[in-house]
Amino acid sequence: MTLTAQIVDRLSSLVVGSGWRRGKPAPSTAPEALIEAARALPGLHSETRVGAVAAEILAGYGALDDDAKRAFFAGLRDHFDPDHGALAKAARRWLDNGGPGDLESLSRMAEPPRQELLRRLNTAPGGTARLVSMRADLLRLTGRDKAFARVDADFRHLLRSWFNRGFLQLVRIDWHSPAFLLEKLIEYEAVHEIRDFRDLQRRVLPVDRRCYAFMHPAMPDEPLIFVEVALTDDLPGSVQALIDEHRAPIAAEDADTAVFYSISNCQAGLAGISFGNLLIKNVVAELSRELPDLTTFVTLSPIPGLRAWLDERAAAGEVAIAALLADPQPVSLVAQTSRYLLLAKDSKGRPRDPVARFHLGNGAEAHRVIAGADTSDRGTKQSLGMMVNYLYDRRRIEAQHDAFTETGVIAAPKRLQDLARKTEAEAELPAKAGKTDSKT
Amino acid sequence: MTLTAQIVDRLSSLVVGSGWRRGKPAPSTAPEALIEAARALPGLHSETRVGAVAAEILAGYGALDDDAKRAFFAGLRDHFDPDHGALAKAARRWLDNGGPGDLESLSRMAEPPRQELLRRLNTAPGGTARLVSMRADLLRLTGRDKAFARVDADFRHLLRSWFNRGFLQLVRIDWHSPAFLLEKLIEYEAVHEIRDFRDLQRRVLPVDRRCYAFMHPAMPDEPLIFVEVALTDDLPGSVQALIDEHRAPIAAEDADTAVFYSISNCQAGLAGISFGNLLIKNVVAELSRELPDLTTFVTLSPIPGLRAWLDERAAAGEVAIAALLADPQPVSLVAQTSRYLLLAKDSKGRPRDPVARFHLGNGAEAHRVIAGADTSDRGTKQSLGMMVNYLYDRRRIEAQHDAFTETGVIAAPKRLQDLARKTEAEAELPAKAGKTDSKT
Amino acid sequence: MTLTAQIVDRLSSLVVGSGWRRGKPAPSTAPEALIEAARALPGLHSETRVGAVAAEILAGYGALDDDAKRAFFAGLRDHFDPDHGALAKAARRWLDNGGPGDLESLSRMAEPPRQELLRRLNTAPGGTARLVSMRADLLRLTGRDKAFARVDADFRHLLRSWFNRGFLQLVRIDWHSPAFLLEKLIEYEAVHEIRDFRDLQRRVLPVDRRCYAFMHPAMPDEPLIFVEVALTDDLPGSVQALIDEHRAPIAAEDADTAVFYSISNCQAGLAGISFGNLLIKNVVAELSRELPDLTTFVTLSPIPGLRAWLDERAAAGEVAIAALLADPQPVSLVAQTSRYLLLAKDSKGRPRDPVARFHLGNGAEAHRVIAGADTSDRGTKQSLGMMVNYLYDRRRIEAQHDAFTETGVIAAPKRLQDLARKTEAEAELPAKAGKTDSKT
Amino acid sequence: MTLTAQIVDRLSSLVVGSGWRRGKPAPSTAPEALIEAARALPGLHSETRVGAVAAEILAGYGALDDDAKRAFFAGLRDHFDPDHGALAKAARRWLDNGGPGDLESLSRMAEPPRQELLRRLNTAPGGTARLVSMRADLLRLTGRDKAFARVDADFRHLLRSWFNRGFLQLVRIDWHSPAFLLEKLIEYEAVHEIRDFRDLQRRVLPVDRRCYAFMHPAMPDEPLIFVEVALTDDLPGSVQALIDEHRAPIAAEDADTAVFYSISNCQAGLAGISFGNLLIKNVVAELSRELPDLTTFVTLSPIPGLRAWLDERAAAGEVAIAALLADPQPVSLVAQTSRYLLLAKDSKGRPRDPVARFHLGNGAEAHRVIAGADTSDRGTKQSLGMMVNYLYDRRRIEAQHDAFTETGVIAAPKRLQDLARKTEAEAELPAKAGKTDSKT
Repeated sequence: MTLTAQIVDRLSSLVVGSGWRRGKPAPSTAPEALIEAARALPGLHSETRVGAVAAEILAGYGALDDDAKRAFFAGLRDHFDPDHGALAKAARRWLDNGGPGDLESLSRMAEPPRQELLRRLNTAPGGTARLVSMRADLLRLTGRDKAFARVDADFRHLLRSWFNRGFLQLVRIDWHSPAFLLEKLIEYEAVHEIRDFRDLQRRVLPVDRRCYAFMHPAMPDEPLIFVEVALTDDLPGSVQALIDEHRAPIAAEDADTAVFYSISNCQAGLAGISFGNLLIKNVVAELSRELPDLTTFVTLSPIPGLRAWLDERAAAGEVAIAALLADPQPVSLVAQTSRYLLLAKDSKGRPRDPVARFHLGNGAEAHRVIAGADTSDRGTKQSLGMMVNYLYDRRRIEAQHDAFTETGVIAAPKRLQDLARKTEAEAELPAKAGKTDSKT
Repeated sequence: MTLTAQIVDRLSSLVVGSGWRRGKPAPSTAPEALIEAARALPGLHSETRVGAVAAEILAGYGALDDDAKRAFFAGLRDHFDPDHGALAKAARRWLDNGGPGDLESLSRMAEPPRQELLRRLNTAPGGTARLVSMRADLLRLTGRDKAFARVDADFRHLLRSWFNRGFLQLVRIDWHSPAFLLEKLIEYEAVHEIRDFRDLQRRVLPVDRRCYAFMHPAMPDEPLIFVEVALTDDLPGSVQALIDEHRAPIAAEDADTAVFYSISNCQAGLAGISFGNLLIKNVVAELSRELPDLTTFVTLSPIPGLRAWLDERAAAGEVAIAALLADPQPVSLVAQTSRYLLLAKDSKGRPRDPVARFHLGNGAEAHRVIAGADTSDRGTKQSLGMMVNYLYDRRRIEAQHDAFTETGVIAAPKRLQDLARKTEAEAELPAKAGKTDSKT
Repeated sequence: MTLTAQIVDRLSSLVVGSGWRRGKPAPSTAPEALIEAARALPGLHSETRVGAVAAEILAGYGALDDDAKRAFFAGLRDHFDPDHGALAKAARRWLDNGGPGDLESLSRMAEPPRQELLRRLNTAPGGTARLVSMRADLLRLTGRDKAFARVDADFRHLLRSWFNRGFLQLVRIDWHSPAFLLEKLIEYEAVHEIRDFRDLQRRVLPVDRRCYAFMHPAMPDEPLIFVEVALTDDLPGSVQALIDEHRAPIAAEDADTAVFYSISNCQAGLAGISFGNLLIKNVVAELSRELPDLTTFVTLSPIPGLRAWLDERAAAGEVAIAALLADPQPVSLVAQTSRYLLLAKDSKGRPRDPVARFHLGNGAEAHRVIAGADTSDRGTKQSLGMMVNYLYDRRRIEAQHDAFTETGVIAAPKRLQDLARKTEAEAELPAKAGKTDSKT
Repeated sequence: MTLTAQIVDRLSSLVVGSGWRRGKPAPSTAPEALIEAARALPGLHSETRVGAVAAEILAGYGALDDDAKRAFFAGLRDHFDPDHGALAKAARRWLDNGGPGDLESLSRMAEPPRQELLRRLNTAPGGTARLVSMRADLLRLTGRDKAFARVDADFRHLLRSWFNRGFLQLVRIDWHSPAFLLEKLIEYEAVHEIRDFRDLQRRVLPVDRRCYAFMHPAMPDEPLIFVEVALTDDLPGSVQALIDEHRAPIAAEDADTAVFYSISNCQAGLAGISFGNLLIKNVVAELSRELPDLTTFVTLSPIPGLRAWLDERAAAGEVAIAALLADPQPVSLVAQTSRYLLLAKDSKGRPRDPVARFHLGNGAEAHRVIAGADTSDRGTKQSLGMMVNYLYDRRRIEAQHDAFTETGVIAAPKRLQDLARKTEAEAELPAKAGKTDSKT
């Protein structure tokens, strides 16, 4: 028996899950055994065997409980750093000599062997999806532990390379799409819940609805991100009206506005690898081609951080929530929302609202603030029913993106800018007044 | 005008090819301008703009002549190494402190910015195919110049990751395949020339023929590698008989043998990223599923290095070529060929014949040596008409692979082993005798 | 303005629905106007215009209410018979002369112009589906009125020709099928209700489930008939166990039995054009190819007429329903069911049970009678929970079909035959006894 | 053994070809045996068996030589007419009583049993294509024999019903189409020969070329008719320039004219079932959607009957061919061609030129006559290099169709009309003069 055969034999006895196949549960395997197999993986020469061992490791991993997964990740952390001695030698040699060959050696030695491990795991059937799911576990179980940061860095590095725009496919999803894919939409919809297939049908079947997703060819069963679009003949003022089941659809050719009313990321394991910006811009291009009469591309977006910010302002004596809510004319609420969106910043000086940050960062304009636009429980709780239209104007989008990125300038109509500033100025008076008062 | 907008403006004026579109020739652009655009690429934030600039660089590159391409590669070599100062600092800090954060920094700083450039170029439409073709140019124009080795290392590193087995698709090619794909087969066939579509039809249409390729989803128009298979009812002894246009096909169900008679790599830009081993094993599995009565998987392979080796042996006085050829019974030729395949080594101690190296490295057995098997001009010139069947026996393939990889043992029937050794022993006698003679 | 143009103009003003398009409701049109347009249709020469007028008639028809549809069908009945005078002339000429040309003329004149009308309506986009749906209306609204029999005869004649086996496509339906198609399964399932997509998933997703349908290329959105299959490792004894949502699936390769547990016709408009027999036999062939280890093909079928027949027998004093139900060992119930299936006849001497008639007519064997096999409300009500396995044994199916068709012989195991006869014999005694009694 | 089983047994012994399968030649079968099997076919009840016997008859037919095919067709003629006695009875009963039931009976009895035979043959796999091919044989072998007219009438009747517009699929053919389909284009191109795949590539690959076909779902390997289109930026004046292999393509978006330069029917067996008109109009609609800037849809058509007509005119002394050809300015040739196209009639009073008849009948305008437009051997021989542009103007097409159909009016620009009339008038003078002369 050759040496490799002995190793493989040993691996098979370690990885109890090797008998795993569809329809039979994989018996559990110790994470230590999986890590041992993973350490042997880079030494194997036969590509067929690499694939087989990779499949066994991934199947074995899939059968672990959370504690065992944590142990597996610890193994990934501890056993797949660059070889310390070799790297130190390479680093010193380059520092001393600085030849191009030395640089290449240093680069090669500095790449953590974890990356080659992940590449080899990816050769198993369905490997890509399993690695994405493994990273979702990693973030969930170790996300706050800095000791695991370098494990995640390697995952992210490879996933970013593999989920490069050049490999993504823009797919239209409708009622002719496969059921398994539609099922994922129900599962992943993050903004306005889809209760069941009947409910989903209303989002994708009518002639004035569209849904698009990015897919990756190595994960044909999994959307990465999807966006739901309504075709309308005016700016939408209420998400409930937009998805009302009794509304009458309009002909797509009669629409002048495309409303992006829900964007959902599907893969927790791809966190930090952004697809939303590209998806919106690709869909704008696609819709413009199909329906040349569309003139306006706009979102109907939630303002998830509004209520929390208002509560802070109330605590600071600037606003009175009860009064805001009691007001039959929501003038003050609109004013405060404008202020929040355009002027409230987070600790890094960026717009405080995460959804605002996303769309403004894409180059959109904070176009209109609407009261009573989301009367759902969540809408009421998060934002007192307020929503916002972000406008994607193709002629201005790149300039606005640059201005936002470089100098933090937020694109918004002058009217809204003025309202926000005026509200801010007035708010500071009573607050200061209050402070002054309290001093006296 | 924002800073980024100014840069982009400047880029557009540099990259004259920016007006490029299908049907119009791209005006030529100086390679220096392309390199300047490439250097700006990593600094862009808008993904849309990254894609647009990447597309312009790739289009501009496509219009360069060879001298300009060489200049472009020199730019890639000179301007995309890791930042020397920053890397030196990171290396020293890690050598001094050795904390995990320091290691991560070092790894990150040691990755050449060329890799990020290539990832960004890949976001352009058709980017992957263009990068593969760019690497083909790189190898062709700078392949022997060590100064470019690190440029190629970065290409190879990324392509190896992107063309990971997990992303490849095994595709059957037949007379229902798209014409553009079949056309590529005619273009790329490297072993037994396909003259035109009529000739190709004979390779893929009859019921006892199969053709399989690996495809990559980001290069839907380009096969990576393909293999042609004949289904037969005995071991094939002549490639001309196998592809004779007047032969009578047999029913696929009546075949017990699958003959791999031609394997061709299609992408010069993927040199060094091996697909052949996996392709053969995937096709063996696929055919076994479809046609359970197949018992034998075997190649009919050329021996490209035979004649050159024989000439050397003749020069050394061991063999007489004229006598070999005159012999109506090709006993001596078979004997010498066995010796060549099983015993002749290259400077690294591997089998001297490149095709033998490939199949034996895959775990195949050198099963049978056949005289008069390739009567084409090339066959006669390269190997005096000799061919060989390499046998892929699924039960022994992994063990033979291990033995070959670890200890260089070549799998072959005892009869062939004995013949090779006996021929070698006999050859050394007259040679030594000759040497002795010449001394006296 | 030419004559045709004048006619077409007139048509357009009649067919108010001509402005009809997707997303706008078609205004209602008088059935008389549609019939007038239909009468003009055969006179049009331009194929484009034929298509356009056909589309308007079908759209106009779709907007009619039931009364107006009845009037439309009356129009079809009254205005599209062969021309009386011309046919009489042709008939007499052939009777007198009998030349081949005369025969051809007679054949041509005897074909009702309705058939050409239907062929021309079929040229409209989606015409085939609309005609099938029109016939469903026809049967529903006029089915019992003999005056409409010749209208239906023309529909049936053409649909039988168009839905010829040569045009049908056998399609596997699973969780990758388009949602609109799966939705139709929920709608059309006639045997064991499918509540929603979640419920449907259990019928098509697990590895031991299969579903197949016949589709017609001109009706890509509509299955014609579908069958649901369970792969098991023994003869199924209960439909509730078979579709239980908590059951553990088995690997398809481990199954030796395929159970056809539900067959549903989808198109009321194709009544009388039988697909079930072909579907079952095609699926048996398909499954045999895919899973060579399957040895047994069997149904688990309802006995919809059992209870009604038992009630008659009870009224005749032959059986006591209460006693049958009270019996903890269902011996008597099994015996009476066997008698019903094998011996009870309808007025034409055929098996009285419609499901039995279908499967026995296909050449299947009444294989096993099972008590407590369908505990649903319907199962209890129709058949006291009894079900039956019909066995499709490929070696005997044609012979059994012939025997059944020619001489009415029902294939069944001797045990079941004996039980049926013995039960019949015993039943007649008390019945006669009872009659005798009552006479005294 | 049942009666049906005995019949089937007998059939199998008759139809020697029953062992036929792919890869083995079908042994020849006597046509009488096939006719005997065909006569038994309507009596079979099992649909599975109908399919099997149909397949055997079609396979057996496929192996017949032409004499045997003629004998087979004689069998179809002699044994599948309506039953004389039954039809006579039905005819008399209807003549006497005239009830609706009597009419139905008469209609049913008058349909030749050949039609049911053809419907049953169609249930065999690939049956539709085989029946189309059988009709091609029928026309070729018996086309001029009136005794077979009623056989062909039944074929045509069913094929017209099965190849109804509602079942046709418009397919774009390009370089991504399957090779087997492209191969058919080479085979069927009737107007401007395609030599090989390389030549074909120039017709379908460039961005300014299109090719469309009608396909039928039951004949997925066979186009019914196809049209080749060139996108240009002016009216084409030469077919050689249009398909020149060195021409530079233009961007599709820059084209304002679509030129239909070749239309070829593919199925001799579908003669008399016209697809060309619909194909052109569907392609005009399709191109208008894809390329809204197209303003002109025009053919570049041959004038196959010109030379023959000129020879007649020369014989009548009206024109001198040598002079026509010698004239460096082809003024006279253009004049005579206009006269031929607009004024020359066949015996039924229709335009004498068959291609003119087709396009004018579709509603096109005879737009422009071009000298030197087809310099091929055929073009020179048939029409002295003359060609014609027929213009399809969507706004006028239906009106022109009506005018042509109803009153024979040919649409043409006034200039061309005048030229034709003037040429005709002048031609008659010398002819009359000549006649007068010769009289003297």
